[in-house]
Amino acid sequence: MQRICVDMDEVMADTLAEHLRRYNETFSEAVTPADLVGRSLWDLTPQERQQQLRAFLDAEDFFEDLDLMPGAQEVLNSLSRRYDIFIATQAMVVPNSLGPKYRWLQRHFPFIPPTNYVFCGDKSILRADYLIDDQPRNLHLFTGTGLLFTAPHNLTTTGLIRVDNWKQVDEYFAGVHAQD
Amino acid sequence: MQRICVDMDEVMADTLAEHLRRYNETFSEAVTPADLVGRSLWDLTPQERQQQLRAFLDAEDFFEDLDLMPGAQEVLNSLSRRYDIFIATQAMVVPNSLGPKYRWLQRHFPFIPPTNYVFCGDKSILRADYLIDDQPRNLHLFTGTGLLFTAPHNLTTTGLIRVDNWKQVDEYFAGVHAQD
Repeated sequence: MQRICVDMDEVMADTLAEHLRRYNETFSEAVTPADLVGRSLWDLTPQERQQQLRAFLDAEDFFEDLDLMPGAQEVLNSLSRRYDIFIATQAMVVPNSLGPKYRWLQRHFPFIPPTNYVFCGDKSILRADYLIDDQPRNLHLFTGTGLLFTAPHNLTTTGLIRVDNWKQVDEYFAGVHAQD
Repeated sequence: MQRICVDMDEVMADTLAEHLRRYNETFSEAVTPADLVGRSLWDLTPQERQQQLRAFLDAEDFFEDLDLMPGAQEVLNSLSRRYDIFIATQAMVVPNSLGPKYRWLQRHFPFIPPTNYVFCGDKSILRADYLIDDQPRNLHLFTGTGLLFTAPHNLTTTGLIRVDNWKQVDEYFAGVHAQD
């Protein structure tokens, strides 16, 4: 059975929405995803607020209750019948996220066993056929087929296979299946 | 640069010593590693104590302060000049261990960056040249060269390259280096 690795933040979970919510609330701003085309919230944030931007992520409750990306549950549930699904998430730069991420995955994706969670940093360590990720850097490190999951910050990225949402992920693997 | 993945429990950290300490203290027993040749503490423990045996591992402080395996720091520090060292530890069956394991690694192995930690379940996900592990099962799943790190439970295992201690790990890679 072929193996698909799936990134969490901005692919399964709407991490950006929560980050923006806390940022706008704290600094009385109104930044939206549309302001972040081709750049991250980090790029946009003035120097004197960078430390707070990071502190949002370190908060014990940040990763506990993120919204799901639409369709992630349904499509992964369906794909899990034909593929081994692994979750591959960068958790090591925010160690407080380890427990909350584990619980979030168990709650929303009970059909993926915890033995298929991979909390890592450098995604070149993954041995898999596919990786779905919003970070071009991760896809370039990966040795299998990478799928760039659209997020505002990567809208200007070229040269990678792109999927805009979970419906397109489903269609991509339906196409792969048809070729087999 | 070639890549070595290293397991934590019973390879870098003396997890068995702490498990035995708690077991013997709680049940007024005197089990030693010598009683565990070719079998695990789980195999030896009566049914009615299995739940407690598991509860020891779930305790918040179990993985916080494990003893180092002799030579692990020195040999890994030396190998890190010639190899990319990744830590690959099964943390997903004991989610409480995620935070303590992260802190333990930072404290004792500051020369290995957290981006090289991999907290996983199924070690077939690892893309690396070598894996040093005490569990034959993990080595059979791994696609690179596996080194079985001697532990009481695996003393009867055959058919794998065996290293008895960190001095032998050092010697093994000195031999590999000499052949390059």
